[in-house]
Amino acid sequence: LLSKQPVKTKEKITIYVGEVGPVWSYPETQLDCVVADPKKGSKMYGLKSYIEYQVAPNTTNRPVNHRYKHFDWLYERLLDKFGSAIPIPSLPDKQVTGRFEEDFIKMRMERLQGWMTRMCRHPVISNSEVFQLFLSFRDDKDWKMGKRKAEKDEMVGVMIFSAIEPEASDMDLIEVEQKCESFSRFTKSMDDGVKDLLNVGQEHWKRCTGPLPKEYQKIGKALQNLSAVFSSSGYEGEATLTDALTETGKTYEEIATLVAEQPRKDLHFLMEINNEYKGLLGCFPDTIGVHKAAIEKVKEGDKLVATSKITQQDKVTMAKRVSTMSYALQAEMNHFHSNRIYDYNRVMQLYLEQQVKLYEMIAERLRQALGRFTTM
Amino acid sequence: LLSKQPVKTKEKITIYVGEVGPVWSYPETQLDCVVADPKKGSKMYGLKSYIEYQVAPNTTNRPVNHRYKHFDWLYERLLDKFGSAIPIPSLPDKQVTGRFEEDFIKMRMERLQGWMTRMCRHPVISNSEVFQLFLSFRDDKDWKMGKRKAEKDEMVGVMIFSAIEPEASDMDLIEVEQKCESFSRFTKSMDDGVKDLLNVGQEHWKRCTGPLPKEYQKIGKALQNLSAVFSSSGYEGEATLTDALTETGKTYEEIATLVAEQPRKDLHFLMEINNEYKGLLGCFPDTIGVHKAAIEKVKEGDKLVATSKITQQDKVTMAKRVSTMSYALQAEMNHFHSNRIYDYNRVMQLYLEQQVKLYEMIAERLRQALGRFTTM
Repeated sequence: LLSKQPVKTKEKITIYVGEVGPVWSYPETQLDCVVADPKKGSKMYGLKSYIEYQVAPNTTNRPVNHRYKHFDWLYERLLDKFGSAIPIPSLPDKQVTGRFEEDFIKMRMERLQGWMTRMCRHPVISNSEVFQLFLSFRDDKDWKMGKRKAEKDEMVGVMIFSAIEPEASDMDLIEVEQKCESFSRFTKSMDDGVKDLLNVGQEHWKRCTGPLPKEYQKIGKALQNLSAVFSSSGYEGEATLTDALTETGKTYEEIATLVAEQPRKDLHFLMEINNEYKGLLGCFPDTIGVHKAAIEKVKEGDKLVATSKITQQDKVTMAKRVSTMSYALQAEMNHFHSNRIYDYNRVMQLYLEQQVKLYEMIAERLRQALGRFTTM
Repeated sequence: LLSKQPVKTKEKITIYVGEVGPVWSYPETQLDCVVADPKKGSKMYGLKSYIEYQVAPNTTNRPVNHRYKHFDWLYERLLDKFGSAIPIPSLPDKQVTGRFEEDFIKMRMERLQGWMTRMCRHPVISNSEVFQLFLSFRDDKDWKMGKRKAEKDEMVGVMIFSAIEPEASDMDLIEVEQKCESFSRFTKSMDDGVKDLLNVGQEHWKRCTGPLPKEYQKIGKALQNLSAVFSSSGYEGEATLTDALTETGKTYEEIATLVAEQPRKDLHFLMEINNEYKGLLGCFPDTIGVHKAAIEKVKEGDKLVATSKITQQDKVTMAKRVSTMSYALQAEMNHFHSNRIYDYNRVMQLYLEQQVKLYEMIAERLRQALGRFTTM
């Protein structure tokens, strides 16, 4: 497998050596697209209905329509073609029931958007013919022809490595192995960290939408109840106290609502990003597995040469190919790291901004309630 | 019982009719005292040890020392003497084990202080000979003589009503009954309201000191853990992110501590006041029971006169006595209401002030953490 002749291709993928090490070749302006405007469509005289999303790339400003199954088709193509070198995260789950419910459609759209954004950001994927087709086919005929061509693409699986050309000199097998090991360790421990955060986040979500607001409601009710009892005393001049108590009770009911609605405003995005990364990290073991298998093959090389299973020349080619794979892995890891830094920085800021707003709002509401009491 | 001759006394208790209705006669400067400085003392050559509290009234500025059992003695005297007319709240619980532990002593002192403050605030109690003795005896001899005298006091139980002199004309039996009923209803429903708030408060206390900070700690740990994973990436230039993540994680751990320590700063006082009121309200059924029994007796009056069990004159005396009791109950209810308004106003302000501080502090800490991230 390793020693097959490389397929000639126009789709050359260059790897530069930048400050951080091997990097993919990034376009000057980054591709981006907006997934929006889900509409119900139908086929076969209305017998089959489906949801179509509008996908608008920033390059053409001409939106195209796609159903979930088109996204799924694209995913399969990308996985076939790039899966050995680049982790291709899964699409949001297929769902059988409730496909036409508004919340589901909104959530799916949000996640398709997330997936598309991630694919657009990837220089190798976004530059590929199949991806470009998906975003900017002109008409049905164009789309169908492109589809047929993509499905016949032979540059898939490990073949993709033959399209990759590192700018730098070949790497030592030991170095290749070390890099591979360290990436494997990193992705494994990040996977653990992300899952841990997801568990904690889920638990927190439950508390924030369940027992905690219920308790604030109870406090609110207890205070309003006490206020009602006080009002019934018949004692003159306690209107200020009872009004203030009622107000405080209502404030705690408001706090209950604020707390319960908060996770959608902040935790939601933190969870989504971590879910995306969980999916992405889940692809790494396969990618790394391909590398490890290749390394093992090269290690066996001497034995294979001795038993005349391969020639000395084959062995050199194999070592060269493994070096290229390692450059690809490094480029991919560097891509992964820079995106990770960007994503976590952004989502943590969003999370903290919303958290600050929440606590400030609670403090403000309580201060208003406090102002209703008389100072004696 | 009702028609016994009143005992002559110097201890006349006058009831005025103020804006809110019948009121006790209040002193110009309110008696107050500070319970402080608990010290271990011993008797019988060190065989018996006890804790002595310093009680300093604002009238003499000469502190006296009292053990818990002296407070208990005072409580018994006040209950005997005034219990039929005035609810005398119980002292903080007796305790057999752990009497010399610091936390217990502090808590008991705080509660004795609360009890003394309430007693000082009561114009009838604070003006009584036995209470004055407790606060300002000159020496051991003085104390022992006063004790003996107080224990022999005959002006106890329902006799206290004979010392009470309302300034206003006698009340109609129907009105007496209505007042009694409405006070009974009010104290019952306030008792329910207070107990409800205590339950809710207890539940909230548990959450704030248990699962909630634990969850914040977990969030903090998960973020710090992720930061440690990120640091191990070997990727250059993510120190800002990892520092900010670590800082955010630590902030959530701090928030855990803030949340867990908060109940001692605010909920504690709200609970203490409500516990005091629960105790106080628990005394009302007895006090109101005495009134209801007296009303029943007067209702039976005609029958008793008819069967010559009492004279017509006796019946008039009884009606007069019940009217006096009703004035006393009204004065006491008005005293109760004005104290209740004061206490709840004060404790709610304290509670809300501390709550505002908590949420502001959390917002401030989170804002600091947010500031550690780079804006891109």
